[in-house]
Amino acid sequence: MSYTFDVFRGSKEGKIVADQTTRPLRPTDVYIETTHSGLCGTDEHFLHSGQVLGHEGVGVVKALGESVTHVKVGDRVGFGFTHEVCGICEHCISGWDQYCENKKEYGSHNHDVGTFSRGVVWNAGNVFPIPDGYDSANAAPLMCAGATVWTCLTEYGVRPTDRVGVMGIGGLGHLAIKLASAMGCHVVVLSSSERKREEAMAFGASEYHVFKAGEEIKDCKPLKHLLLCGSANVDYSSIIPLMDIHGSVYPLTVDFKPSALPLLTMCFKGIRVQGSLVASRKSMRSLLQFAADKKIEPTIMTFPFHEAGIEDAMQTLRDGKMRYRGVLVRE
Amino acid sequence: MSYTFDVFRGSKEGKIVADQTTRPLRPTDVYIETTHSGLCGTDEHFLHSGQVLGHEGVGVVKALGESVTHVKVGDRVGFGFTHEVCGICEHCISGWDQYCENKKEYGSHNHDVGTFSRGVVWNAGNVFPIPDGYDSANAAPLMCAGATVWTCLTEYGVRPTDRVGVMGIGGLGHLAIKLASAMGCHVVVLSSSERKREEAMAFGASEYHVFKAGEEIKDCKPLKHLLLCGSANVDYSSIIPLMDIHGSVYPLTVDFKPSALPLLTMCFKGIRVQGSLVASRKSMRSLLQFAADKKIEPTIMTFPFHEAGIEDAMQTLRDGKMRYRGVLVRE
Repeated sequence: MSYTFDVFRGSKEGKIVADQTTRPLRPTDVYIETTHSGLCGTDEHFLHSGQVLGHEGVGVVKALGESVTHVKVGDRVGFGFTHEVCGICEHCISGWDQYCENKKEYGSHNHDVGTFSRGVVWNAGNVFPIPDGYDSANAAPLMCAGATVWTCLTEYGVRPTDRVGVMGIGGLGHLAIKLASAMGCHVVVLSSSERKREEAMAFGASEYHVFKAGEEIKDCKPLKHLLLCGSANVDYSSIIPLMDIHGSVYPLTVDFKPSALPLLTMCFKGIRVQGSLVASRKSMRSLLQFAADKKIEPTIMTFPFHEAGIEDAMQTLRDGKMRYRGVLVRE
Repeated sequence: MSYTFDVFRGSKEGKIVADQTTRPLRPTDVYIETTHSGLCGTDEHFLHSGQVLGHEGVGVVKALGESVTHVKVGDRVGFGFTHEVCGICEHCISGWDQYCENKKEYGSHNHDVGTFSRGVVWNAGNVFPIPDGYDSANAAPLMCAGATVWTCLTEYGVRPTDRVGVMGIGGLGHLAIKLASAMGCHVVVLSSSERKREEAMAFGASEYHVFKAGEEIKDCKPLKHLLLCGSANVDYSSIIPLMDIHGSVYPLTVDFKPSALPLLTMCFKGIRVQGSLVASRKSMRSLLQFAADKKIEPTIMTFPFHEAGIEDAMQTLRDGKMRYRGVLVRE
């Protein structure tokens, strides 16, 4: 049994192009009709590559491979960045399957499959049932933006009594504020201007500071954790002095080129810089449940799920006008 | 009651100069006759500053301030880098007193006191009794070199089943090999030449690889932890590929200038760079006990404890001929 579904690719010229992909339904696969997809800066990055875009999908399961038992036809599920993992390598069995050593082609690494699509054949082990009552449009941005900040907030020792900094209020940053605040943390937002103060406080921030590289912040007590969610061009020599002893910095939007880190200051304060990648499957599940339980909803702008809608969404992102995550919604 | 004792300073010309310091014995102080002092690269760094040098001291308690109860006259004690700490700030009460917010002048921050001395007045809370049977000359290098690697090996999740890399075999590196090996770890030594292979294996290493920046190592499985104990001029873009998923890199010999770190690769592998500073008082105590229990002895070269002896030791260090830690020994 095979499925053929419509997909949307980027192109050399930067236009969105409709195409079709055909995939066999293996015993462990499900066929999903895509209903929603979030839009990420990474899509902009790969726009000219010609690959099918998108990695924040939500849809409805329409068919099951013969071995699939943990989802059923009609289930709403999320899917996207988490690849098809082997389940037996050291990282998979350690609960860190986002680093699986044997990722397979069916995942988002395959250029003919993505969440900018009308449908997708996906390994059932990598789909995540959406809790009842939690809106699919809100679930989509959790698949990458939410996942990325959730791993930092839950896997590296953040405590509810900690001062947690979030630098940059965008797709990732606004979710970091909402999630960390719901975890009980004292959330300290660093932004380059006053513009987003009111919104950030409404999202759950306890403090808001205008911060520019090279300038000092007055009256900001040291931060135990700091999620860098803004520009990839970070001046670490300005960042590290904001940190508490044994603080952790999480660079989530990083430059392709190496960055200059002040290791001496980091040693004198026992600071770590922690690399982190999206989320494991267990983290994805816990995030969806937490978001549903605490009624945490991404702040989104919706766009129609066709070529013009995608291009409109990407232009909005490019213009820095997305508040704060774009979601494509199928009519 | 005051004590006057001989000290050895550096000088503008780089010569070692004898001098005297007088210190009152406060109720919480002890007066120690210095018998041994290790020699560290930091002493070379401060040689021209004119301050009293040395921070790896061992001596015999000769007098007690009226409140001192936990050591007695005649005890052999280590002292050195750990400062006089307040005991009440957040870091002190968290067991991380090397980061005390209220360090006081009597510690090694004071330029008139150091372990290149015939005696010292030191806060009793910062001296560490040497276990019976453990040689004072061996205890001296544990006060800074040993302490620095011990913190990495015991405070950041190193497990006995881990592959632990040690890059650079010198004062710190050779102790890292001995200690990690005694902890049960599989120790992987990276060195710039074949020269030290036999010694490294005798110290407890399980593997020895010649590693040069920009070159690949064949047949070296990924490292879970890597202590950088060699040159401060590290090519991190060559280092990070050696690391396992969720690996940790500890830069112990760092450049004053920021270093270029490949954050993207760090994110893709979930790698952290962990700053770390010497050791807390609890770590110092556990290190001395562990070293005594396991009969771990630094490999040392001894020098007479006077101006010419100090200069000879510093020249040996400067020439890269120290095997592997210099210790000044009082006749």
